[in-house]
Amino acid sequence: MSYGYIGSMKAKPGYRDDVVDILLSGADGLRTVGCDLYVVSVSDTDDDTIWVSEVWQSKEKHDASLQLPETRAAIGKAMPMLTGEFTSQEVTVVGGLGV
Amino acid sequence: MSYGYIGSMKAKPGYRDDVVDILLSGADGLRTVGCDLYVVSVSDTDDDTIWVSEVWQSKEKHDASLQLPETRAAIGKAMPMLTGEFTSQEVTVVGGLGV
Repeated sequence: MSYGYIGSMKAKPGYRDDVVDILLSGADGLRTVGCDLYVVSVSDTDDDTIWVSEVWQSKEKHDASLQLPETRAAIGKAMPMLTGEFTSQEVTVVGGLGV
Repeated sequence: MSYGYIGSMKAKPGYRDDVVDILLSGADGLRTVGCDLYVVSVSDTDDDTIWVSEVWQSKEKHDASLQLPETRAAIGKAMPMLTGEFTSQEVTVVGGLGV
């Protein structure tokens, strides 16, 4: 079964959309390294929280992607705009619609 | 932009897979009522928690689906197997890979 990751990050006030842009800019390239789904969303209940729901062919492919130069560059760009408040869930994707 | 829902539910010990089966049994039918993505996952850190990540064409279509007879029947079937511990996030889907 696929590996799933569900996480949130809090942007500093006024920076949420800049972080979203960074996340989206790399999304298309993830398919070639084993990502099947990368959904970027913003909270409907506060102005700063970003949610990412991901499905990968394996945890190994997910973890390896974090070492890619373009991913490290994106993380480096986004970090100063984030408060450091994260939540994360690692899950096993069982199935559904669209996966 | 699409409506997203990220939620978790805790099954009573030993009932997680039964609840997962109920969730999956209705998944395919959701496409016809405006659901674009319905991902059912199980936590990698405990044996009882189920995660659902959903993308809908609108909040209205999501909410309307909860009134469908088959959805109400599924909820009725699953509820006795759940502890009542839920988390839920309503989000606006901005984009990404696969959405």
